Amino acid sequence: MSGNTFGKLFTVTTFGESHGPALGCIIDGCPPGLALSEADLQRDLDRRKPGTSRHTTQRREPDEVRILSGVFEGRTTGTPIGLLIENTDQRSKDYGRIARQFRPAHADYTYWHKYGIRDYRGGGRSSARETAMRVAAGAVARKFLAERLGIRIRGYLAQLGPIRVETLDWDQVDRNPFFCPDPDKVPELEAYMDALRKEGDSIGARINVVAEGVPPGLGEPIFDRLDADLAHALMSINAVKGVEIGAGFACVEQKGTEHRDEMTPEGFLSNNAGGVLGGISSGQPIVASIALKPTSSLRLPGRSIDVEGNPVEVITTGRHDPCVGIRATPIAEAMMAIVLMDHYLRHRAQNGDVAVTTPVLGQR
Amino acid sequence: MSGNTFGKLFTVTTFGESHGPALGCIIDGCPPGLALSEADLQRDLDRRKPGTSRHTTQRREPDEVRILSGVFEGRTTGTPIGLLIENTDQRSKDYGRIARQFRPAHADYTYWHKYGIRDYRGGGRSSARETAMRVAAGAVARKFLAERLGIRIRGYLAQLGPIRVETLDWDQVDRNPFFCPDPDKVPELEAYMDALRKEGDSIGARINVVAEGVPPGLGEPIFDRLDADLAHALMSINAVKGVEIGAGFACVEQKGTEHRDEMTPEGFLSNNAGGVLGGISSGQPIVASIALKPTSSLRLPGRSIDVEGNPVEVITTGRHDPCVGIRATPIAEAMMAIVLMDHYLRHRAQNGDVAVTTPVLGQR
Amino acid sequence: MSGNTFGKLFTVTTFGESHGPALGCIIDGCPPGLALSEADLQRDLDRRKPGTSRHTTQRREPDEVRILSGVFEGRTTGTPIGLLIENTDQRSKDYGRIARQFRPAHADYTYWHKYGIRDYRGGGRSSARETAMRVAAGAVARKFLAERLGIRIRGYLAQLGPIRVETLDWDQVDRNPFFCPDPDKVPELEAYMDALRKEGDSIGARINVVAEGVPPGLGEPIFDRLDADLAHALMSINAVKGVEIGAGFACVEQKGTEHRDEMTPEGFLSNNAGGVLGGISSGQPIVASIALKPTSSLRLPGRSIDVEGNPVEVITTGRHDPCVGIRATPIAEAMMAIVLMDHYLRHRAQNGDVAVTTPVLGQR
Amino acid sequence: MSGNTFGKLFTVTTFGESHGPALGCIIDGCPPGLALSEADLQRDLDRRKPGTSRHTTQRREPDEVRILSGVFEGRTTGTPIGLLIENTDQRSKDYGRIARQFRPAHADYTYWHKYGIRDYRGGGRSSARETAMRVAAGAVARKFLAERLGIRIRGYLAQLGPIRVETLDWDQVDRNPFFCPDPDKVPELEAYMDALRKEGDSIGARINVVAEGVPPGLGEPIFDRLDADLAHALMSINAVKGVEIGAGFACVEQKGTEHRDEMTPEGFLSNNAGGVLGGISSGQPIVASIALKPTSSLRLPGRSIDVEGNPVEVITTGRHDPCVGIRATPIAEAMMAIVLMDHYLRHRAQNGDVAVTTPVLGQR
Repeated sequence: MSGNTFGKLFTVTTFGESHGPALGCIIDGCPPGLALSEADLQRDLDRRKPGTSRHTTQRREPDEVRILSGVFEGRTTGTPIGLLIENTDQRSKDYGRIARQFRPAHADYTYWHKYGIRDYRGGGRSSARETAMRVAAGAVARKFLAERLGIRIRGYLAQLGPIRVETLDWDQVDRNPFFCPDPDKVPELEAYMDALRKEGDSIGARINVVAEGVPPGLGEPIFDRLDADLAHALMSINAVKGVEIGAGFACVEQKGTEHRDEMTPEGFLSNNAGGVLGGISSGQPIVASIALKPTSSLRLPGRSIDVEGNPVEVITTGRHDPCVGIRATPIAEAMMAIVLMDHYLRHRAQNGDVAVTTPVLGQR
Repeated sequence: MSGNTFGKLFTVTTFGESHGPALGCIIDGCPPGLALSEADLQRDLDRRKPGTSRHTTQRREPDEVRILSGVFEGRTTGTPIGLLIENTDQRSKDYGRIARQFRPAHADYTYWHKYGIRDYRGGGRSSARETAMRVAAGAVARKFLAERLGIRIRGYLAQLGPIRVETLDWDQVDRNPFFCPDPDKVPELEAYMDALRKEGDSIGARINVVAEGVPPGLGEPIFDRLDADLAHALMSINAVKGVEIGAGFACVEQKGTEHRDEMTPEGFLSNNAGGVLGGISSGQPIVASIALKPTSSLRLPGRSIDVEGNPVEVITTGRHDPCVGIRATPIAEAMMAIVLMDHYLRHRAQNGDVAVTTPVLGQR
Repeated sequence: MSGNTFGKLFTVTTFGESHGPALGCIIDGCPPGLALSEADLQRDLDRRKPGTSRHTTQRREPDEVRILSGVFEGRTTGTPIGLLIENTDQRSKDYGRIARQFRPAHADYTYWHKYGIRDYRGGGRSSARETAMRVAAGAVARKFLAERLGIRIRGYLAQLGPIRVETLDWDQVDRNPFFCPDPDKVPELEAYMDALRKEGDSIGARINVVAEGVPPGLGEPIFDRLDADLAHALMSINAVKGVEIGAGFACVEQKGTEHRDEMTPEGFLSNNAGGVLGGISSGQPIVASIALKPTSSLRLPGRSIDVEGNPVEVITTGRHDPCVGIRATPIAEAMMAIVLMDHYLRHRAQNGDVAVTTPVLGQR
Repeated sequence: MSGNTFGKLFTVTTFGESHGPALGCIIDGCPPGLALSEADLQRDLDRRKPGTSRHTTQRREPDEVRILSGVFEGRTTGTPIGLLIENTDQRSKDYGRIARQFRPAHADYTYWHKYGIRDYRGGGRSSARETAMRVAAGAVARKFLAERLGIRIRGYLAQLGPIRVETLDWDQVDRNPFFCPDPDKVPELEAYMDALRKEGDSIGARINVVAEGVPPGLGEPIFDRLDADLAHALMSINAVKGVEIGAGFACVEQKGTEHRDEMTPEGFLSNNAGGVLGGISSGQPIVASIALKPTSSLRLPGRSIDVEGNPVEVITTGRHDPCVGIRATPIAEAMMAIVLMDHYLRHRAQNGDVAVTTPVLGQR
């Protein structure tokens, strides 16, 4: 199977370039009977869409999604769900200059090498614009997971450059343009981003995602462990350079007695595992963290070469996010939802439906 | 496809439990004409095998591999390659006690929930013993990659608990039982491990893996990016809790001007990207880093429950590695080799063979 | 992967119901650099589209396809190709009556059992309307195969009810509404179909498809043999009940000395094999034949049951083909093109590009 | 995924050459909890194995299978099941002569073109010897299907050359070496085969396979219809040149009123559909029929060429079946079992377990 499909049973296949006529997606494998309408997808799309604050790209895209198939009289039918979003605010003329230049840290150079041809307008296929379709597909998965299994998936900005979030108040996340769960940090983030924009530079970020209510048993060792598929899904998001599950890299310095999550009849006593043991969900919250690199589209000139190999100085104009991490929260949530949905179906195939067997420990 | 196969064109499917009669593997998709014998696989197997120093498990397994098909008169024929390793040193009686107990931080609890039945002897399928087959399959991939494309894949221990490696001397890696590239650190590692073993505790580690000579163009966006598949492959190794590509989590605090790897006609000026841009290899070295948690099999008692949900105190006897990270270097190399091999074939399918087109930058 | 994707490297994923807003398709894995425009797809779509003669359904659909991605400045870019056809002539009110009845020999009963919900309008997903997307995707494959490898794929009506074609004049195939290669049989076919329509009944048909210029070496034993994948592809077309390769069922009565295609330096002396030996193309023409059942939508009443299990008498109104076989020729060609394209890419992945090695026998 | 794996959720991956050390197989995705031992597999292997009558090859292979993993204390654990059969009666010297010749109608020529190298001993990978592993894997599937769903899968010889079976007495099938359900035809078959063997020629055959008790709802339109996957599976068996479902090619001459299987509250009134409507099982028996070509290994000389392209006369010595169709019955049953098993799991993934919903019609 080619590289634009994710999932084995809940499969999401996408198409679309940043400045093409439309983005689209086919979800195959969604169980029948799920109540579904465009509004269910729009909420998450609106959280991701550009132009909602001064801190993200000023491209204006309503990102209105149409469901073209797979839903009849308000319910999914088990047949493939076709989704479409028209692009409306392309300004391709912004990109004429880079047709023959490779922007540093962009995919220009590698797409050129791989395919010998590239749609350079706005990054073409390599643009983060494709993530709109991940969010739309993820919304279907999270609705199913919430309604049938009671699973809740939420993410937040954990760090932006030097600013680390210190308190986790879930209610705050959607009340500021940064998905920041710590209201005290918001003014600091505003100031930092304003300075950065003036400067013409960009910055990295860390996003955490948590899924609660996941039943024990999801994951397909030895290669398609739940954590391995999560790593795949999260690392496939534009700009992601690192993925952690639970304690992540901190476990390098942990001793076994410290890392192991002891169990009592009342539940686990800690969650260093991040909810995954031996590649299978334990019933504890699934906890993942990702690192996003700073945007590569900068007004500040950088050295590069052109397609003939001559040295050039590249300045990226056009409209860009100075911190791609800001809009990444709904995308990371969506990918986690897709992975869990796929693994729920895979588990159900081999083992029948998830069952509450004795003992199920309390979550912590 | 079920979870015991890795790869889409160079596919590796494995079977085998820690204390079953044998481990096996089928490699499907290996190009014909590659010179191959058991000896080619044995070198890497010997680097991974247990019992070669006092710092790893004392289980004695010769790990002698047999090639059962797919090779004729010393060359691969393009048909599937069957591999088999007999288990010879099982001591299943060591495990009687844990048949009805869940060892903390092990897969006991989750396998029980998933399947309703488990082979508890030595961890059964969840044992790191299955990684022998990854190493054998990886050896086929790395031989092909070396001979046809000149790719070299090497790994090393970067950190063990508090001890960080400071110099990278590739020649040292295979000269000590830790795969440590910094000879000055070896005595420190010896002392630390001896103390740990006496204590009965275990420790985490960080392993770095580098592939040099990878041509630009490998990777299948948008979901099967090279880095995403690497993350999948590396996170699927037992005990891995984190994966980084290039700068990894350090990029959270990097600015765009700092992170972007500028290009000149002579080559890239840095490698924060870790050799992957937009999910496609750039021609620079591919650099990945993984975190391995401390072994969960400890002599020190831990709180847990049994299958009826009663509280128990678990002590793990049997033979175990106090730091699984030590033997992980050849495993991580193998997984990187398998990913690169698979992506080379995928690239060749769509784009024809990798071509040296202008410009190819020097590596750095 | 779910059931609406065909192909492993040239993957075609489709969506759409007969009376939904649109049909769509994503082609992933098409090599970059192929010149492609809507016109290239429209020719085959026009051959398949309804309402072009009195012998097929009178539904009027222009079947105009839009390319939404994957093509830049007239050439494929290697990224997924999104295709869309809007439905324009739905008359869903025709179908109100069958919402709670199962039409005999239709998929009504089985979709109901499988999914518990069905879009009954015009057969929903089970309508042959979905084959429009197969034809569009097949057109991409056949253009590539023709331009890069010189492969030509053509089909024809071999039998319709009692009328068997006796001469094969390829030039005649597109000159009559039946895809009949024997001009002498056309008046007979016209008369037969007119009588059938008056009667309210329907009839079966046999279609043959031939691919010339296929290089030796395509096919992936032992399960994904070229003939096995062809059988899969052709049997997946609505109404197909049988598939033959080469001599097909005639070989039951053949002796080995009669069946075997002897070879001389000048070429094969016969083609009982239909161009496939051991699951791999031999360089001879690939020859397949399919049987299509008579349409099940009849004005003549048939016994059935409703969703409560009560007996009912079903009469199908609406607009239908009295012989689905008539329009099946371009669909069968399309599926053969998709299979060959997929296998060409699979072969190229493992073995490098197809090479003319000694000896290649002449075709017969 | 490469071509030696069949199935998407119940996946069977095989290896092994005719004259290599062993044949093997990995079954991944078998549900846990199934009682399973070698004896369960041996029964079907014994039905297929060579040398049991004078009418099949005289190669003596006990075909004793070992289960190497995935079963613990007599039950499947949900982890991959490794199977192994050692080859014991290779006489490779028989094949020295054909190392550089292409036997007509064999895979010699095409393997040479595809891979550039081939294991010519006994046909290597292209030998029907690999079907032993299909039978072993199929035995696991049929045991599960029988125990959990009450499905029974049986096949029989329907025609051998000019001899057509006229009565179907299931009890007779395993009482003669031909799997012939019509005891009156057995003497005729004996005489025909004796004459054929004397003559040095071979003959084709037709095998029918029937699955009873299949619940309605299995099949994954639009590409992975149940009949399409059956066609794939059955056409992948060595020597098969045609596949029919239900009425098969007879439907070319059927009218709609004749073909359609009417329904009453008591059940279907006929089974032209062969148990599949719209690609989904209807609850009626699944009925398939296959054509097998005559064996190509003949003592009678045939014209061919050698690897330099020179004309040669080929005589095949060695030990061969004069009618491969004879031993094909258990193989066809096995492939049908694997397909049904895979589709049962796929159905369960998307739709939950098969449910008896109203109305389920009686079978006919």
